[in-house]
Amino acid sequence: MTQTIPLKAVQRPAGGYFFEDYAVGRRFHHATPRTLTDADASLYIGLTGARQAVHCCEPLAHALGHRARPLDDFLVFNVAFGKTVPDVSYNAIANLGYADVRFAAPVYAGDTITCESEVIGTKQNSDGKSGVVYVRSRAFNQDRSEVLAWTRWVMVAMRKARSGERTSAAVIPALPSHVEPSAFGVPAFLKGAALEARYTGSERLWEDYTPGETIHHPGGMTIEEADHMTATRLYQNTARIHFDAFLALGNPFGKRLVYGGHVISLCRALSYDGLENAFAVAAIHGGSHSNPTFAGDTLYCRHVVTAREKIPGRDDVGTLRLRMIGAKNVELAKLPDLAPGEKNEAVVLDLDYSVLIPRRQKP
Amino acid sequence: MTQTIPLKAVQRPAGGYFFEDYAVGRRFHHATPRTLTDADASLYIGLTGARQAVHCCEPLAHALGHRARPLDDFLVFNVAFGKTVPDVSYNAIANLGYADVRFAAPVYAGDTITCESEVIGTKQNSDGKSGVVYVRSRAFNQDRSEVLAWTRWVMVAMRKARSGERTSAAVIPALPSHVEPSAFGVPAFLKGAALEARYTGSERLWEDYTPGETIHHPGGMTIEEADHMTATRLYQNTARIHFDAFLALGNPFGKRLVYGGHVISLCRALSYDGLENAFAVAAIHGGSHSNPTFAGDTLYCRHVVTAREKIPGRDDVGTLRLRMIGAKNVELAKLPDLAPGEKNEAVVLDLDYSVLIPRRQKP
Amino acid sequence: MTQTIPLKAVQRPAGGYFFEDYAVGRRFHHATPRTLTDADASLYIGLTGARQAVHCCEPLAHALGHRARPLDDFLVFNVAFGKTVPDVSYNAIANLGYADVRFAAPVYAGDTITCESEVIGTKQNSDGKSGVVYVRSRAFNQDRSEVLAWTRWVMVAMRKARSGERTSAAVIPALPSHVEPSAFGVPAFLKGAALEARYTGSERLWEDYTPGETIHHPGGMTIEEADHMTATRLYQNTARIHFDAFLALGNPFGKRLVYGGHVISLCRALSYDGLENAFAVAAIHGGSHSNPTFAGDTLYCRHVVTAREKIPGRDDVGTLRLRMIGAKNVELAKLPDLAPGEKNEAVVLDLDYSVLIPRRQKP
Repeated sequence: MTQTIPLKAVQRPAGGYFFEDYAVGRRFHHATPRTLTDADASLYIGLTGARQAVHCCEPLAHALGHRARPLDDFLVFNVAFGKTVPDVSYNAIANLGYADVRFAAPVYAGDTITCESEVIGTKQNSDGKSGVVYVRSRAFNQDRSEVLAWTRWVMVAMRKARSGERTSAAVIPALPSHVEPSAFGVPAFLKGAALEARYTGSERLWEDYTPGETIHHPGGMTIEEADHMTATRLYQNTARIHFDAFLALGNPFGKRLVYGGHVISLCRALSYDGLENAFAVAAIHGGSHSNPTFAGDTLYCRHVVTAREKIPGRDDVGTLRLRMIGAKNVELAKLPDLAPGEKNEAVVLDLDYSVLIPRRQKP
Repeated sequence: MTQTIPLKAVQRPAGGYFFEDYAVGRRFHHATPRTLTDADASLYIGLTGARQAVHCCEPLAHALGHRARPLDDFLVFNVAFGKTVPDVSYNAIANLGYADVRFAAPVYAGDTITCESEVIGTKQNSDGKSGVVYVRSRAFNQDRSEVLAWTRWVMVAMRKARSGERTSAAVIPALPSHVEPSAFGVPAFLKGAALEARYTGSERLWEDYTPGETIHHPGGMTIEEADHMTATRLYQNTARIHFDAFLALGNPFGKRLVYGGHVISLCRALSYDGLENAFAVAAIHGGSHSNPTFAGDTLYCRHVVTAREKIPGRDDVGTLRLRMIGAKNVELAKLPDLAPGEKNEAVVLDLDYSVLIPRRQKP
Repeated sequence: MTQTIPLKAVQRPAGGYFFEDYAVGRRFHHATPRTLTDADASLYIGLTGARQAVHCCEPLAHALGHRARPLDDFLVFNVAFGKTVPDVSYNAIANLGYADVRFAAPVYAGDTITCESEVIGTKQNSDGKSGVVYVRSRAFNQDRSEVLAWTRWVMVAMRKARSGERTSAAVIPALPSHVEPSAFGVPAFLKGAALEARYTGSERLWEDYTPGETIHHPGGMTIEEADHMTATRLYQNTARIHFDAFLALGNPFGKRLVYGGHVISLCRALSYDGLENAFAVAAIHGGSHSNPTFAGDTLYCRHVVTAREKIPGRDDVGTLRLRMIGAKNVELAKLPDLAPGEKNEAVVLDLDYSVLIPRRQKP
């Protein structure tokens, strides 16, 4: 899991890579490793309203066995993701999906994140103008321990349109439908029982959630241009579509798009009221940004509990498998139930993921 | 003063508390304690433009006897206040007033703030739709030393309107008209004479201010949605009215309101030019947000010196009692003098408070 | 170079200084020294999108010989500049130019910056309403080591217009046309060869740039009011024109102006793609903000390499002299080549400066 990929610099073309550049097996060692600090944690709170107690309360972090407050899982995800953008999605037309996202180990202030990616699949589109690239990315800390790994696939423009002509045979990777709880990165030191209700504000634990249950989180968050751009800059994500309003005049929407990872972060923050004890994200099994989000939109979040599972070898912590629905400019109560995979024009995010949550201890 | 209130988790109803839930004597141990850091201090500067030298200059902090830069008083106030919102004012219609606010001890980067509140009064409104709840709140650091205590009263909606019918007899607490200087939390270690003009830019000390004197601070600050929301998220204040533009379409203003604590912070920051040596806030005796503030408004600040008092046992530091007037979209010179309690449509903040300021030392 | 200027407090007039107050030789010890932290570094990334690896990657900083990540040169410049505003440019009509800007030594988190200025020239304008003031400013760390020095000249309003009458003879200082590479503050400990391409994402070094070469950096950044105001507040720059929309209704533009230092920071950040290994700014020889920038504008950056020079005594690091062109709301490819000093209505920044960049090592 922590196998070292040889470090090798890549001289990126000035205009970035295009579909033709992505051969299966090609590896990228992404530039500008990032040392994360307490400041990123605070700024993340300021930009998202995150309240997970373990990330903002040092005594609780110690009680749980951490050496310090771990950084928010989605802060780490977004920073790691941002590192891959110049090499993977600079000329992306759309970010199509995620799979097999594993949060392998906590990241703390002072840690330095380095990312690497490998092309694991490509498929040219029939219009000859673009193709889909599948990439497996991994993020390491300064000790070369893997902290995060994920697969995503993006639609990338071709450098030169070739009507009808195929440049290469399609390679579509086999992707797991989900990450098994036995593969979750639950630290051995973790003392789940220490997450007391006096810290989180809720006594609802693993046993109190029922598969099929729907939770409408009460808050809503309106997104401003300055907010999503500041978050996306903090992640050093350079995708132009988030920042350049002049260029965006020429896209189909005529305006900037909000980075999807910011939408995930906001939904995670909104879901604190109702999922107070879901203290860590273990895995993302799959998901997609089903509609674009723009500045001015107000986000709401609904969760559906899809499964409640034990984690092998742990009786202090269990896992909930959740469907996170991010919707915009709509009363959640008026949003219909959605069948798996069903789309809705108000829904901007549909994520299948798993969280860690303490189990009730026998007295 | 540092008596321990027993820790007890409270399972909050999903939609928050309503007037009927607030019985006199009910206690809340607020969730998500917060470890504050240098990052919160920097972000506070970025969001308010605060310049108080003791908060941004480590050598000065040391010279004054602090072990590090103390955090800005209103940063601490806003964070502590934010902790109480989910339990106290989630369904608040209006934040009616403050009293007996005591800044008991400095807070430093690394300290963790925990908050507790007790209901000390309730009064149902005659319309049967809402009532006033009086709450005493206290904030502690990780050593269970009290750092801040305050009383506020809010108008809270009733879960179920009851025309004419009273659910409980009114209990209106006796509130002090002001905090005595003898009760101010002036640290024993403090060396007030160290606040030299080369740090602050001004030689005006306690002796140089005259009761009755009015100060028009020269700056103005226009508030953007992104700014007040980022500040309010940083304080983990979850009141929906500040964040949810879609929901706000249904309120009387049709838009988001700026959190009152952000207005106080901005006025404090603007007042640096003219009150450079007023290095700490000792107490807020009373005050109110007399009109709402919205994004797009430009804030200005006027101070009236209402008293100049000595502090028992200290000859290095005295106190000024001040009336802080925050006004919007108006030239201060055209704003009339205001009698105590007099309102004006341009005035959004009227605060009666006391600051610490060095006294001139005999040569 | 590190000569101590005696510390002396100055009681600034309430409305700030006017042209008449600036006598050649007058010195200002600027107020509110600032301790910079990791938080300022993170917030700077969030506000600008800066990616220079040495500022965000602790292991690289160590490999280069630094004791920690140095703070971004323009973060330091903007903070130091901000300190001078209350005394130098509070009543400025325009910031006319820069010369002889020397980045003398790295600044690290924890350092405290103090600034001092001296008036080195004055010239009353013939309209009798304003004049030009030339100021030499210096910034020191807590050890009284000079970290930055710069000359700027500003047009300042007169307190009292005097048609035709001269209050003083013009004194125009001799300013160097450029800073010699031999005067650059390259730390003796620096190991330039450590800046490997795996950190920065590019193998282009000193040898790979050719005088006359033009680089069009691919990104663009749209500026929001909240962003430039947060940056400018972070720098504790108090110039009212950046913050006060109500007052700005009366200026010729009818709106707030973006602080020029924020424009420089954004152009520096945009230029990462193409100048990845230009890891430090050594000097600014001259420059001007040729047109105002407003919220809503989208910034782009073009660089022209004007010279490639060796640095005496160093074979690991060389210097490029660059012309940084910041342009707004325009396709760079359609912006004509500009002769030295030539203006263009889309160009908002024209800066002549030098960077440090590693030289290729013989194998």
